[in-house]
Amino acid sequence: MGGDHAPQAIIDGVGHAHIRHPKVRFILHGDHARLQPVLLSKPAIKSVIQVEHCDDTVAMDDKPSQALRRGRNTSMWRSIDSVRKKEAQVAVSAGNTGALMAMAMFQLRTVEGISRPAIAAVWPTIRGQTVVLDVGANVDTDARQLVDFAILGEAYARVILGLDRPSVGLLNIGAEEVKGNDAVKAAAQALKDSGIPMRFHGFVEGDDISKGTVDVVVTSGFTGNIALKTAEGTARLIGHYIRSAMARSVFSRLGYLFASGAFGVLRAKMDPRAVNGGVFLGLNGVVVKSHGGTDGLGFASAIDLAVDMAESDFPARIVDAVAHLPQAVTALGGPPPPAEDAAQ
Amino acid sequence: MGGDHAPQAIIDGVGHAHIRHPKVRFILHGDHARLQPVLLSKPAIKSVIQVEHCDDTVAMDDKPSQALRRGRNTSMWRSIDSVRKKEAQVAVSAGNTGALMAMAMFQLRTVEGISRPAIAAVWPTIRGQTVVLDVGANVDTDARQLVDFAILGEAYARVILGLDRPSVGLLNIGAEEVKGNDAVKAAAQALKDSGIPMRFHGFVEGDDISKGTVDVVVTSGFTGNIALKTAEGTARLIGHYIRSAMARSVFSRLGYLFASGAFGVLRAKMDPRAVNGGVFLGLNGVVVKSHGGTDGLGFASAIDLAVDMAESDFPARIVDAVAHLPQAVTALGGPPPPAEDAAQ
Repeated sequence: MGGDHAPQAIIDGVGHAHIRHPKVRFILHGDHARLQPVLLSKPAIKSVIQVEHCDDTVAMDDKPSQALRRGRNTSMWRSIDSVRKKEAQVAVSAGNTGALMAMAMFQLRTVEGISRPAIAAVWPTIRGQTVVLDVGANVDTDARQLVDFAILGEAYARVILGLDRPSVGLLNIGAEEVKGNDAVKAAAQALKDSGIPMRFHGFVEGDDISKGTVDVVVTSGFTGNIALKTAEGTARLIGHYIRSAMARSVFSRLGYLFASGAFGVLRAKMDPRAVNGGVFLGLNGVVVKSHGGTDGLGFASAIDLAVDMAESDFPARIVDAVAHLPQAVTALGGPPPPAEDAAQ
Repeated sequence: MGGDHAPQAIIDGVGHAHIRHPKVRFILHGDHARLQPVLLSKPAIKSVIQVEHCDDTVAMDDKPSQALRRGRNTSMWRSIDSVRKKEAQVAVSAGNTGALMAMAMFQLRTVEGISRPAIAAVWPTIRGQTVVLDVGANVDTDARQLVDFAILGEAYARVILGLDRPSVGLLNIGAEEVKGNDAVKAAAQALKDSGIPMRFHGFVEGDDISKGTVDVVVTSGFTGNIALKTAEGTARLIGHYIRSAMARSVFSRLGYLFASGAFGVLRAKMDPRAVNGGVFLGLNGVVVKSHGGTDGLGFASAIDLAVDMAESDFPARIVDAVAHLPQAVTALGGPPPPAEDAAQ
């Protein structure tokens, strides 16, 4: 059981999730001796949990390759294994992202026809929410992988945002067709001309993400991860500005008191816990990665995502989408690289 | 004369700048017939301006290659030409970025030993300000170019932030050394081990930009541009949240009134006009790119940057830095690509 505040945050999260999803059952992989005292304080969830004892864990700073070689007895490995063995429908973890991706790729394998998995994040926008992927599973991404991410992201937006025909954009540095690197240009060409039944919008820029210009924003894991963390950093910077501006005079402090309800709404809007959870897409099974530093409320949001994914039978949807891919797309890419390279 | 609000915004900007820098003289390249009526309303700047008539312009949607081939009689070309001929020390433009970069590269050429120019932006942080580059001049970037950007960015931070020994970080998706693409890893190696006299911090992540972890953040033009626009979009999204939160009840509106001074401070902090201006670094001359949609105040900020750069004799500093580059760095890269490929 991982994350910065395990097992307390995890079990608190199960407590919140149980109220929202009373029929969902949980298998907790972790150290029985550490789980037991926390579980005693939560009698309400006793009937929906099953503890699988396991005292080895993946550390937050373990390298993915290390974790993969030596981690077969860890709670992380076991939780993914329970998805592989169909004992569970989704694995949820707040642990080491790179190790989780490496283990998930190794145990669950990508859906046939999808070259690489991606991590998808749900991003707040002026219009609502937008799916952004990949936010960190892959470092170098070619055109075929970007097309795969578009397919995965579109299917994910149908499930999570409840949209019939989500629009999809490719992240680029200019809307003009001359700009962008070769991978982005070739992917745009394929999404436009290959006959994939998708509402492809074309290129979008960084500020289009929070404008909500499209429902799905596709990019490489390198750029997506940097965009996500830059946005988080910007939100924290502005939060800092707000706090220091409101503390500067008696009037502003009084104003803050009067508007405290409004500031509460604002805080809730800016709270990263509300949309916690990156989902690994493209595997024969679903894995949800919760933020490592999250608390129980944030972990419950990750469980919400997991429940939606389980109900949608997501991997089967992807198998179906890949089976109907036009020839022009399957011709774009080579065979997938070996699983050991995952999440480097 | 370019940008969305030329010539009004440009001439207003000169008006503001003249108050701050009374000794600076301005050559205005543009249509005399359009400039004249606006200039008549600004008698204060009459003594410091010189109008060079020119009625052809680069359109905001011209492709860089087009502008380069057909644009020799445009105000943009002429303004860069005045830097080439040493009539001016810096060119400032609110026009088409790609065309400006292509023309600047073609006319001014890169400093010998620097393979590609970069666009640097100044970014507000919790600790103060950080230089980020490249934010859009290059699409594909190799290790040698990242090292060049580190050299350019460090020199720029000395001038603009007034620092003796700025710290430099390479933007990556994880602080661990295993992560990142090949270019980023090789550049880190060179900056660490080659003996460049630079305070190299190592890798930083997206949220480190606004934390102010380092004084200079180095990245490719593709990632830097997307990070910059994502941050702008996030700031606008939060501004939207603030406005709707404050309008939701009588109490919040009252609070807003009491705290209106604080909100003014907040607006000023979040105002992109305060740090307007990307600077093209690495050329035999300095070009400052103002935001296309800016007003007079924003354009004046771009002129502030231009003045600082002129006073520092920036290109000579770069010639000096390159002359002292260790062998290990010069061995990293090949010859620069032809100027026609600029800003594609």
